[in-house]
Amino acid sequence: MKLIIKKDILLENLIITSRALSSKNLIPVLSGIKFDLTKDGLYLTASDNDITIQTFIDKKEIDEIKEVGSIIIPGKYIVEIIRKIPSDIIDITKLDEYKIYIKYNSGEFNINGMDPNEFPTLELEKTKTPILLNSDKFKEIVTETVFAISTSESRPILTGLNIKINENILECYATDSYRLAKKVIDINSKLNNINIVIPGKNIIEFKNILTEKNQDIELHIFENKVLFQKDNILFQSKLLNGNYPEVSKLIPNEFKININLNTSELYSVIDRASLLSNDRDKVVIKLELDNQKIKISSNTPELGKVEEYISVKNDDKIVISFISKYMLEALRSYNDKEIVLCFNEEDKPFIIKSAKEATLIQLILPIKTY
Amino acid sequence: MKLIIKKDILLENLIITSRALSSKNLIPVLSGIKFDLTKDGLYLTASDNDITIQTFIDKKEIDEIKEVGSIIIPGKYIVEIIRKIPSDIIDITKLDEYKIYIKYNSGEFNINGMDPNEFPTLELEKTKTPILLNSDKFKEIVTETVFAISTSESRPILTGLNIKINENILECYATDSYRLAKKVIDINSKLNNINIVIPGKNIIEFKNILTEKNQDIELHIFENKVLFQKDNILFQSKLLNGNYPEVSKLIPNEFKININLNTSELYSVIDRASLLSNDRDKVVIKLELDNQKIKISSNTPELGKVEEYISVKNDDKIVISFISKYMLEALRSYNDKEIVLCFNEEDKPFIIKSAKEATLIQLILPIKTY
Repeated sequence: MKLIIKKDILLENLIITSRALSSKNLIPVLSGIKFDLTKDGLYLTASDNDITIQTFIDKKEIDEIKEVGSIIIPGKYIVEIIRKIPSDIIDITKLDEYKIYIKYNSGEFNINGMDPNEFPTLELEKTKTPILLNSDKFKEIVTETVFAISTSESRPILTGLNIKINENILECYATDSYRLAKKVIDINSKLNNINIVIPGKNIIEFKNILTEKNQDIELHIFENKVLFQKDNILFQSKLLNGNYPEVSKLIPNEFKININLNTSELYSVIDRASLLSNDRDKVVIKLELDNQKIKISSNTPELGKVEEYISVKNDDKIVISFISKYMLEALRSYNDKEIVLCFNEEDKPFIIKSAKEATLIQLILPIKTY
Repeated sequence: MKLIIKKDILLENLIITSRALSSKNLIPVLSGIKFDLTKDGLYLTASDNDITIQTFIDKKEIDEIKEVGSIIIPGKYIVEIIRKIPSDIIDITKLDEYKIYIKYNSGEFNINGMDPNEFPTLELEKTKTPILLNSDKFKEIVTETVFAISTSESRPILTGLNIKINENILECYATDSYRLAKKVIDINSKLNNINIVIPGKNIIEFKNILTEKNQDIELHIFENKVLFQKDNILFQSKLLNGNYPEVSKLIPNEFKININLNTSELYSVIDRASLLSNDRDKVVIKLELDNQKIKISSNTPELGKVEEYISVKNDDKIVISFISKYMLEALRSYNDKEIVLCFNEEDKPFIIKSAKEATLIQLILPIKTY
């Protein structure tokens, strides 16, 4: 393997590929990035056995392909080395066996590589019926739901994002069994009865790769894995095994009380009401609607208490308590100025939705305080 | 205690005072900020028993002092509460015993405070002969030296910054016994034979308070403590006990070899030469001067090796090895474009100084590699 390549092009692709490296990996070759130089171009592949990322640099973007070949280069070193080399052009040569020689204007690196044949075989095949998604839309779906997935391994299936596709409708669910996020979007697809669960951390990793605006993404769905393609980047993730609970039926269709509220005002009132606590993740907030006023309060006897009022145009009455973190995270998922809180009974789930449209629903289970 | 005060003024002073709070403190009252409202204004005091910070808000800056008095308010809560209150004006009242009531436009907090009489007595007295320092100069001294103090508790005295004052000369030393930083500045003082050691972390804490440019600082030196004053802020630190080693005599007066080098070029060459290592704190760099060239190299057999060349106008010869971290941190302390490396023998300490002036000297002990 021998090539001459622009530093910036190589670095950009190495940074993306290196996101699949895991510091915890016990298989030595998986700490490396596999370089495959063919006459078509350079493939860079990394995997932690759960996700695999492959980028491709076309021959047109390579200054010179002198000799094709493959090698594995230690991932955490090669990215930093290429980043810090002061030359625009880098000369990379595979020496005898698994040594790599990098030459630039003022110096040279000799790095111990690894046998490319020891890299696991990672099929990165595609389907004939990919789903086309817009990258901005995709990022929106993930951001609006993924915070609600479970962080506990007690029910592993809940650590993933549930995606259901039926022709032109994509539904996305996330829950940790205390709250639930649901997002529905229109897509172009002829697939039916798709019901998969993508590990939450993997989908966040792919979202973070999408730094440019308004790009096309292809989603290829298989029995036990998904493959995303964005330009020259392939991102493959395993799926979680098991049946995702039928959470959609938990969302009531009708509500007795609907209160329109300014999103940021409600957020900051609840944020303040959460301040007096030793454990910010477990603050119980009490919401009391009465006499065209909402009272938001919280009481931690050893520290103190806080109460605030918001005026509303609503003659209903309800008292309901919830965990502040769930409400704050749900509210952060809305860009709209105005949201609607929808209640039935004190001990029944309530939802938040935008005052404009209902593609995103955040459901929260109340806390029993009596 | 009862007052009405602008949110911004109170918050700004609380943030500074709260820097003395320690999360590790076992004495409950030291988790709080003591409010002392007198007819002259409001004193805010916090201490972790090692440093004490007191800020003072003059009565002219307080909207209304309704009733003088004192209370301790839990520090980590009061700062966040004042920060997040949406009102410009805040009404604070001490209720029966140790409760505090905070009223603002849309709501109210009731916080459990503590008995102000339980706060330790912290004498914040001044001397009649303070040393006047410019805040920019003071920050420079600290930034240029404090990185070289020891982080190990095996010789506690080396975890501090040694300051010596003899009339109009202030010398500052920091060492961890592998490298040494020395800074000398001119001051206006009539003090003699001052030789104190201020804990490094405390002096960094005070430096971080100095956010405005070109301010006047007073330094009051006592037997076992120092007090800094900047406007309405008092910052007191204990001193370290014990004799600081006489490190100044370790710095040679004459050198056989002096090499002028571009600071940022040398920095980035050594930075690159440090990349191939599992432990970035312990990389050994070899510097070889020969034939008007400096070769910088590093070799970690299990990972690989790197070498780079810098051309110099110098016909001397020397081979010397050092820990890259010490060289990089030393080089970062210079704002000058050009520095001078000064060597005697391979196994003798070498120094770095600015090509322009010699108020700052960084000394490094070489590593024996033979």
